[in-house]
Amino acid sequence: MSFPQAFVDPSSVAVVGATDDRAKWGYWLATGALAGAGRRQVWLVNRRAAQVLGQSCRPTVDDLPQAPDLVALCVPPRHVLPVVRGALAKGCRAFLSITAGLGADEAELAALLRESGARMIGPNSLGLFNAATELRLAWGNFAPGSLAIVSQSGQLGSEIAALGARAGLGVSRFYSVGNQLDVTAVDVLESLVSDEHTSTVALYLESFADGARIVTALEALRRAGKHALVLTTGASEGSRLLARSHTGSMTSALDVVDAACRAAGALRVATPRELVDAARVLDATAPPGGRRVAIISDSGGQGGIAADLAGDRGLRAPVFTEQLQARLRDLLPAAAAVSNPVDLAGAGEADLQVYARVTELVAASGEVDSIVLSGYLGCYGEDSPSLVNAESAVIDRLGHLGRGHQTDAARVPLIVHSMSAASPAVARLREHRVPVFDTIDAALGALGHLTQLGGQPRPAPMTVRTEAAVPAPGYWAARTFLTALGIAMPEARLVTDAAGFAAACASLRAPLVLKAGWIEHKSEHRAVRTGLGPDTADAVFREMYERLGPGEYVVEEQDIRPGVVELLIGARRDRDFGPTVTVGHGGILAELWHDVSVELAPVDRPTAAGMLDRLRSRRLLDGWRGQPAVDLDALIDTVVAVSEAIAATPGLADIEINPIRVGPEGALAVDALVVPRAEDVVAKAACEATGVNGHRETTEEQEASREHVH
Amino acid sequence: MSFPQAFVDPSSVAVVGATDDRAKWGYWLATGALAGAGRRQVWLVNRRAAQVLGQSCRPTVDDLPQAPDLVALCVPPRHVLPVVRGALAKGCRAFLSITAGLGADEAELAALLRESGARMIGPNSLGLFNAATELRLAWGNFAPGSLAIVSQSGQLGSEIAALGARAGLGVSRFYSVGNQLDVTAVDVLESLVSDEHTSTVALYLESFADGARIVTALEALRRAGKHALVLTTGASEGSRLLARSHTGSMTSALDVVDAACRAAGALRVATPRELVDAARVLDATAPPGGRRVAIISDSGGQGGIAADLAGDRGLRAPVFTEQLQARLRDLLPAAAAVSNPVDLAGAGEADLQVYARVTELVAASGEVDSIVLSGYLGCYGEDSPSLVNAESAVIDRLGHLGRGHQTDAARVPLIVHSMSAASPAVARLREHRVPVFDTIDAALGALGHLTQLGGQPRPAPMTVRTEAAVPAPGYWAARTFLTALGIAMPEARLVTDAAGFAAACASLRAPLVLKAGWIEHKSEHRAVRTGLGPDTADAVFREMYERLGPGEYVVEEQDIRPGVVELLIGARRDRDFGPTVTVGHGGILAELWHDVSVELAPVDRPTAAGMLDRLRSRRLLDGWRGQPAVDLDALIDTVVAVSEAIAATPGLADIEINPIRVGPEGALAVDALVVPRAEDVVAKAACEATGVNGHRETTEEQEASREHVH
Repeated sequence: MSFPQAFVDPSSVAVVGATDDRAKWGYWLATGALAGAGRRQVWLVNRRAAQVLGQSCRPTVDDLPQAPDLVALCVPPRHVLPVVRGALAKGCRAFLSITAGLGADEAELAALLRESGARMIGPNSLGLFNAATELRLAWGNFAPGSLAIVSQSGQLGSEIAALGARAGLGVSRFYSVGNQLDVTAVDVLESLVSDEHTSTVALYLESFADGARIVTALEALRRAGKHALVLTTGASEGSRLLARSHTGSMTSALDVVDAACRAAGALRVATPRELVDAARVLDATAPPGGRRVAIISDSGGQGGIAADLAGDRGLRAPVFTEQLQARLRDLLPAAAAVSNPVDLAGAGEADLQVYARVTELVAASGEVDSIVLSGYLGCYGEDSPSLVNAESAVIDRLGHLGRGHQTDAARVPLIVHSMSAASPAVARLREHRVPVFDTIDAALGALGHLTQLGGQPRPAPMTVRTEAAVPAPGYWAARTFLTALGIAMPEARLVTDAAGFAAACASLRAPLVLKAGWIEHKSEHRAVRTGLGPDTADAVFREMYERLGPGEYVVEEQDIRPGVVELLIGARRDRDFGPTVTVGHGGILAELWHDVSVELAPVDRPTAAGMLDRLRSRRLLDGWRGQPAVDLDALIDTVVAVSEAIAATPGLADIEINPIRVGPEGALAVDALVVPRAEDVVAKAACEATGVNGHRETTEEQEASREHVH
Repeated sequence: MSFPQAFVDPSSVAVVGATDDRAKWGYWLATGALAGAGRRQVWLVNRRAAQVLGQSCRPTVDDLPQAPDLVALCVPPRHVLPVVRGALAKGCRAFLSITAGLGADEAELAALLRESGARMIGPNSLGLFNAATELRLAWGNFAPGSLAIVSQSGQLGSEIAALGARAGLGVSRFYSVGNQLDVTAVDVLESLVSDEHTSTVALYLESFADGARIVTALEALRRAGKHALVLTTGASEGSRLLARSHTGSMTSALDVVDAACRAAGALRVATPRELVDAARVLDATAPPGGRRVAIISDSGGQGGIAADLAGDRGLRAPVFTEQLQARLRDLLPAAAAVSNPVDLAGAGEADLQVYARVTELVAASGEVDSIVLSGYLGCYGEDSPSLVNAESAVIDRLGHLGRGHQTDAARVPLIVHSMSAASPAVARLREHRVPVFDTIDAALGALGHLTQLGGQPRPAPMTVRTEAAVPAPGYWAARTFLTALGIAMPEARLVTDAAGFAAACASLRAPLVLKAGWIEHKSEHRAVRTGLGPDTADAVFREMYERLGPGEYVVEEQDIRPGVVELLIGARRDRDFGPTVTVGHGGILAELWHDVSVELAPVDRPTAAGMLDRLRSRRLLDGWRGQPAVDLDALIDTVVAVSEAIAATPGLADIEINPIRVGPEGALAVDALVVPRAEDVVAKAACEATGVNGHRETTEEQEASREHVH
C-alpha cells in the first residue's frame, strides 16, 4: 500500500477535541493545525464549545461543510469509535489518533478501517509534523531541518527533537506511530525514501516483527543518499535464551539488529544523545572513510585526553609519518608536539592562522580520515575583543576546508570541540557547517559511530549455490549435509556394532574419536570419547554401547594438528530478520567472552572476512605468540557456505559447527549440529503468505511452537 | 614543607606585567587581583605604564612601599629572572609565574628559589583562585562552589571549571601548577585536606613520579570526607611494554593508576565531562552504596533505553520483588510497567504526585541503591502553565526525599534526567540539591562512576608475614622462595644428570614435567616437556640435555586434575607507585583478552577477593557449564602471599606464577618466575634519599638502567 498523501500534505484537516486548555493535546493540535491554515483548510471540532482559540467550532465532523482529508483525534477513548464511524460516513479516509487506551475497542477500530479502506496513524500517537508542508499536529514546536524522526515511542521521538533543537539540528518530518494499528513505522520509512528535505532518519522501534521489510526500507533510504540511525531496546533478550545451539545463546537480539543495520547501511546507537550527536555531524559532512583521526589541540592535556578517548570510541590516532611531522615542525614552535596528537604549544596565541595551516597540512596528507580540533578555538574573541577579527578569519578558512560533503572526495571531515558552548565564533563555525561540540566525549563519540556508517548497503542476497534438502536427524546426516557444502570434516565411518567398529578402526588413522551420533550435546552426556588408539578403542566402544545402547555411532580420525585455533561457525533463522550467520571465538569459553560476529545470511566473502576482522580475538588468526597464521580463506569459505545453506534451506532452524579447527593448512569441522525446524513450524511457514495483519500472529504462533519444542 | 599561606590568602599581592590589553594575561591577573582589593593590598607593576586599569602603577617591585606577600609574574620570559632577583632582594618569598618558556633560565630560577627558601607556583601556570579569600589570579571568571581543581594542564583545569559553571557547579579553589618547578600538585592536594570549602577535588596529572605521596594525599582527602576525581593520559604506555614478565605486558599504566585510586578511595575518569558530571552528583548527594538502580519513567521507550544503558555503565536494574510490584500496581494504571523499569503509563498526567509516591515507595523498599527519574518531569509547567503549581509541589516532595547526603543512611540518591534543560522546575530541583541532567547518558554515566566511589580508602599496608631474601636466579630457587610463602607447588626434584633424573623419576608420580630451570621463557626455547611417562622420560631428558647442556633441571609431577581453571598471579614494582599485584585469566590468551585486576601491594583477603570479582571471567571460578566451583580461598591466599612478598622484598622486580591451576581441591602453581631488580638499580634505590628535585632524575636513571637490562 502506498503512503497516503493525507499524512504528508493533507488538503484539509479537522482537529476533533480542540480546546483552549494548554494542558491538553486538543490545544496543541489545534494551535499546530491553525499554523498551517495558510496552506490548507483547518476545522476545529468540539462537542460543546462554539469557539476554540478564537475560531468558530463545530460539534461533530458531520457538521463540517465537507469531509476533511485528515482527521486528528484527541477525544476521550470511548468517543473514538463513534467519531471514526461518523467521519467514515462523511467520507473521511485518513486519521491520526492521539487518543490511547481504547482497550477492546481497538479490534473493532481495526475492522472498521479495513472494511472502509481508511488509514490511521495511532492510536497512542504523539502526533506528526512535516516542516515542508507546514503540517504540525503534535505537542510543542519543531524547528525545521533535515532530520526525520519515526518513533514507536512518541516521547523518545520528542526527546530526540528537543536535543536536536538545542544543538541547532532541525526536523524535516516527525511521525509518532503509536500502537501501529494500521500505519507502521516501516510504512513511514518507505515514504521517506523520496523526501528531498530529509537527509538523516532517526528510527526508534521496540519490535522488529516486520524485520525483512524494515531492512529493505533502510537499504532504500541509504541508496537514496540518506542515513538512518536506529534506537531500540534489548527488552526481547529473554526470548533468545531458549536457543538450542550455542550460536543462539551467544548472540543477543541486539547483535541481530546490529547485523540488520550493517546489511542495510544503517547504524544502531544506544541513546537519543548519541543519535543527535551523530546526526549533527551528518547534517554537516559525510561520514569519515576510516578510523584514523588527527587530534589537534592548543593544550597537551586536552590533546592527550582526546587521543586516549579516541581509542575507546573505535578510532585510532596514528603517529604521523616523519615527513608530515617535519612539515608540522616547520610551522610550530620547538615545544610543540607534532606526532599526533598535535600540541600547538602556544602558537595560536602568536598567530591564530596556525590553526588553519596545521589543519590544512594534515588534511592534505592522506594520513587520516578525519580531524578533530580540541580546545580554546571559539573562545579567543569571546575573551579578548581584539582577537574577534583574527578568529573570524581563521574560522572562515577552516569552514572552507571543512565542507567534507562537497564533491571533492579528498576532503576529510573536520569536527571542533570548543571550550565555549555558544560564542559568536562557535556560531560562525556552525554557519560554515563545521560541527562543534562542547565536550570531547560528544565529538569523538559521534565520529566513532560514523566510522561504522561509511559503507553502502550490502548487495542484495546472491544466488545460493545449493538448494539442499533438510538432512535426517543425527550427526552422520549432518556430516553428509555439511560435506556436500564443501566443508572439510575428518575422515569417518558409520558403525552400529562392535564388528563394524573394529573394521572402521582398522581403516582409519589413530587417534580416533567415537561419537554417539544421535545425541545432541555429546560432552554433557559422555557420548563422545577422544584419543582412542589400538589398545583402548575396543573397550571404549563396548562401554559406551552398553551405556547408551544401539544407534548410529560415528568413528572419526581425531584432528591432532598443533597450533590450530578453535572457532564456532553457526547459522540461525531469526524470528524477525530471517537467516543469520555467526562466527565466534570457540571452545568452552565462547559464551563467556561473547566474542562473536553476526550478519544476516547469506554473506559474500568480503563480508565473511569482515566478520572475522571484528572478532576481538582476531589477532589469534594471524599467528599469536609465535604461531603461524591460519588459513583464513578456508574459514571464510566455510562461513559463506554455512550462510548460504541456511538461506537456501527454509526447513532448517540451526546449523552449528563447534568447533571448527583452523591451522595453517586448512579448516576442519570436528563437530556439528544441524537442527530442522519443527514440522508444524515448517507447515505454517509454507502458508505464511498472509496479509499485513496476519504476519505478526503467524510469528507469535511460530514462537509458541518453538518453545514447545524446547 | 608546609604550603605557604601566601598561595591561600596572601596579605598583599603584586601583579608584575599588569596591562590594559584584554588579550594579555597581565590584564586578567590585574583585574582579578583588584577584585580582592577589599581584603588585601594590591599593587600593579609595569615597567612603562604609569596607570593600568585606572590604578597607579609602579615600574618595579623594588618601587613598592613594602615586599608583597605574593608576586604574580606575567612578563616576557627573559624578564623573569631579573624580576625574581629584585623581588627576592626586596624580601618577597612567594611567586606565581604565568610566564612560560624560560628555557635554560629555569635551572637558575630553581637554584635561586632553593637558596632563598622562596616558593613558586609555575612557571607556565594558568593561575590560581580561592573563592573563600577572594583571591583571583587567573584568566576568566570562576563561580564560587565546592569543587577544587588542581591541574598540571591549566587549560584542562579551565575546561573543567567552564563545564562546571555551565551546570551550576562552582569552584572552591583552582591551582594550575604548570611546570612544577617548586610547588607540585601533591603539595596543593595536601593543602586541600583541611579546606572546609572543598568537598570534591578534581586532579589532572600527566606524571605520577611522586606516586606514593600522591596516594597518601588522596587517602587523606578521603578520610577528611572529600572525594577526589582523577584525570590523566595513558601517554606513558610505551615504557611498560619493556616488561620482562607477562604480568607487565598485561597491565597498563592506567591499570596501575586505577589501582592507586582504588587504594586511596579516589576515582579515575576519562574526560572533563565525566569528571564534572560525577562532581555534580557528589555536590548534591553521597555516592550510592551499590550498583542497583531503579529506573522510573513516564515513557516505556525512555525507561527501556535507560535500563539497557544502565548495564553498560556498570549498574544493574534488578527486577523488583513481587511484593514491591504489587504495591506499585496499586498506585498505577493497568497499562503501567512495575518490574523495573517502572513505566508510569500516563499516571503523571492524571496526578503529578504519582512521581513522588512511586519514588518514595521504591526508595523505602531497600531493593535499590539509587533511583533515576527519566523523562518529562521538569517540562510539565513549562508546557502547561496550569501545571506549574502541581509540578512545584511534587518537586518539593522529591527534593525532601532526595537529600541523600543527610545523616539518614537509608536514603538512596535520587537523580533526574529531564527532557527540559533549563525550566524553572529544573532549577527548583537543583535548589533542592537533586542532580538534574539533560541526557540519560550523563545521568547514568555519573551514577555508574560513583558506584566505584562508595568505599573508604584501604587500611594502611598491613605488617607483612615474611621478610624474604632475594632468591638466587632460576626456577628451583623460585620454587623454594614461593613454597616458603606457603604457596603450593607440584612435588619436584632438582637434577643435573641422567642418573639423578632416573632416580627422581622413580620417586615421583607420572606423568612428569621436565624443565631447564635456568631458562626464563621455557616454552619459546623448548625448555619444558610435559607428559613424561616411564617409557619416554629418559629419551626426553637426553635430548634436552644434549641441546641445552648442563644446568639445573627440575622434574615435577604434572598437575592432571580435570576441571581446573588456569590463572596468572603476578607482582611488579611499578616505577611510580611501587609494589603492585595482578591477577589475570591465564593461559596463552591472557594478554589477548586483557582480563586482569591490579592493586597496589600488599593486599588483604577482602581486597584479593575483590580482584577476582572484577575479572570478566569470574564466572569460570564458580563452576562454568557444569564444572564444580574452584577453591577460591586457595587463590585468595596466593594473591595475598605474592602481594606481601613483593612489598617485603625491595630487591625483587617481578614475581609471576603462570599458570596457577585451581580446582575444587586447591590451587597449584605449576610454573613461576622470580626476577630480582638489576644490581645497579637496587644500589641506586638504596641512595634514593634525595631532595625534591633529585627524585625525578633518579627515576629516569632507573628507567634507563631497566632498558639496559632488557
